[in-house]
Amino acid sequence: MKLSVAGELSLLEILRKRFIKRPHDVVLGIGDDSAVIRPQNSPMLFTTDMMVEEVHFDLSWTTPFQLGFKLVSVNVSDIYAMCGKPRFLLLNFSASRNASVDFFNRVFDGIEAAMKKYGISLIGGDISSSEKVIVSATVMGYAKRFLRRSGARPGDRIYITGPVGDAACGLALMKSIRKKIPIELGKKIKLPLAWDTAYPLIERHLMPSARDPERVAMAATAMIDISDGLMTDLSRLCSESGVGALVYQDRIPISKELRKASEYLGLSTLALALAGGEDYELLFTAPAGKKIEAFCIGEVIQSGIFVVDERGKKKKASTKGYQHFKI
Amino acid sequence: MKLSVAGELSLLEILRKRFIKRPHDVVLGIGDDSAVIRPQNSPMLFTTDMMVEEVHFDLSWTTPFQLGFKLVSVNVSDIYAMCGKPRFLLLNFSASRNASVDFFNRVFDGIEAAMKKYGISLIGGDISSSEKVIVSATVMGYAKRFLRRSGARPGDRIYITGPVGDAACGLALMKSIRKKIPIELGKKIKLPLAWDTAYPLIERHLMPSARDPERVAMAATAMIDISDGLMTDLSRLCSESGVGALVYQDRIPISKELRKASEYLGLSTLALALAGGEDYELLFTAPAGKKIEAFCIGEVIQSGIFVVDERGKKKKASTKGYQHFKI
Repeated sequence: MKLSVAGELSLLEILRKRFIKRPHDVVLGIGDDSAVIRPQNSPMLFTTDMMVEEVHFDLSWTTPFQLGFKLVSVNVSDIYAMCGKPRFLLLNFSASRNASVDFFNRVFDGIEAAMKKYGISLIGGDISSSEKVIVSATVMGYAKRFLRRSGARPGDRIYITGPVGDAACGLALMKSIRKKIPIELGKKIKLPLAWDTAYPLIERHLMPSARDPERVAMAATAMIDISDGLMTDLSRLCSESGVGALVYQDRIPISKELRKASEYLGLSTLALALAGGEDYELLFTAPAGKKIEAFCIGEVIQSGIFVVDERGKKKKASTKGYQHFKI
Repeated sequence: MKLSVAGELSLLEILRKRFIKRPHDVVLGIGDDSAVIRPQNSPMLFTTDMMVEEVHFDLSWTTPFQLGFKLVSVNVSDIYAMCGKPRFLLLNFSASRNASVDFFNRVFDGIEAAMKKYGISLIGGDISSSEKVIVSATVMGYAKRFLRRSGARPGDRIYITGPVGDAACGLALMKSIRKKIPIELGKKIKLPLAWDTAYPLIERHLMPSARDPERVAMAATAMIDISDGLMTDLSRLCSESGVGALVYQDRIPISKELRKASEYLGLSTLALALAGGEDYELLFTAPAGKKIEAFCIGEVIQSGIFVVDERGKKKKASTKGYQHFKI
């Protein structure tokens, strides 16, 4: 059935019935003019992100489930990057009148899977029509002690929670495959490279998981999530902290899958690791000498952002990652 | 200058500098991964709305200022409709790479004017690129005692805070004029009907004000804002309350401007008043016998929704107002 036949009100009714179970801190969910919650006595975090068809995702290789899941993950990642716990979700969904109710339901399957993963509740939203699919989300969370980008001090060590470049390589793979791979259903498809190599990369692009900072939060002095590329986001953290950074190229964690697939694609592994976006790993700093469960890739210095190559040569780093509107 | 030349980061920097003044309850505004606020010990309200070019607005007759102003008003109206006080705003802005920085700044002029009017603070947002202009907002507020749609009881009287049909008539006028009228600058243009007649109607369409329920809140039993048309929104309130309604046609407040302009346009004044959307007046119920500063248009009954015409004849009402996706 097309959305134009179902109508906005019955779509809202679908959501209302689907998300009727309310946790104790949600006084009123979907269905009135506003949602109502009982806030905790704690600093409250807010973030919002929009994803537009043909800009942020391509429906020729993205399933609606993956779109919904990723929308929630990218927002949750911004809450995690402040050392917060995500709690509530508001959504805007817009699609063509010719889109199907099945498409709509499957976007919400992905959203619901992510909600369960992160322990958050959908409390409200808006549905409208547009030529392209547009989704946006606002996520709220709490943090007794939140962490800014601005706390890094010279001498601190620089960490990341996992390998970088995988998502960008996964995107490059999908651009060459150009077919939907419903990994959420455990489906494999025949690829020109080994499934075990491709899978972690395309999963990182299609259905990224946000990284919970719980294990590292106590020691960290500044934090950001890697959405636009390691060096770009590092430069933002440094700029906010008024410091510089030295990154040791050979300490950057690079997955074996990235090595193999980037070779297959003829892309530079290092360029993908330094500048590839959307890994949603956390990048943070912590004082030297602390035991941290993450990859130490360098140290905070007074000023300038440098990469030290495998021969020990220090070079000024490029900090141009993905930016909307940039040529 | 084009947005593609300025780039996403400098647009965020423009916003950050512009909205740097933080009230005491905003711990962290624009510029980190999330915004941080200190919540009041009070039920907290959330609402979100998206506006898409060529669906919700037409840039051939809507100035960027008017777009920004209206985006905030429609969201604030949803907070007011719960008897809440709006407090914080998060925004998503998306436009073509060829759009100008001036366009961007003027959308935020309108947003800022509305923020001042309603006493709210911008705490965060997201900027991206898209073919059409897309804006969405999430507004948060507080309500010690919030009001649902579901509290209406048979015998209650039905009220609206002001005349209806003006916004729909204003839209019809703009569709025939098809020119920008920067009313925010006090500019008049020559029209085929008197300016004093046209102005209140086009203002209601282009730059609607949300209605603060403060004066009527204490007495009200149920409330909704009129966004999709009087009878449609009344039917929603009735459906949530499990009741019916009797509306006396001759008690519906109709502005003299609507009478004149609908005649000029050859449209039914009554149809515009009953079904025209986007007036953002509040529709509410209150027990009989209370002194209420609003227009009493009917009463709550057990079931069914009826309009009583000027000859006293009772007719089943049409409750089809504006709906996305409906043919």
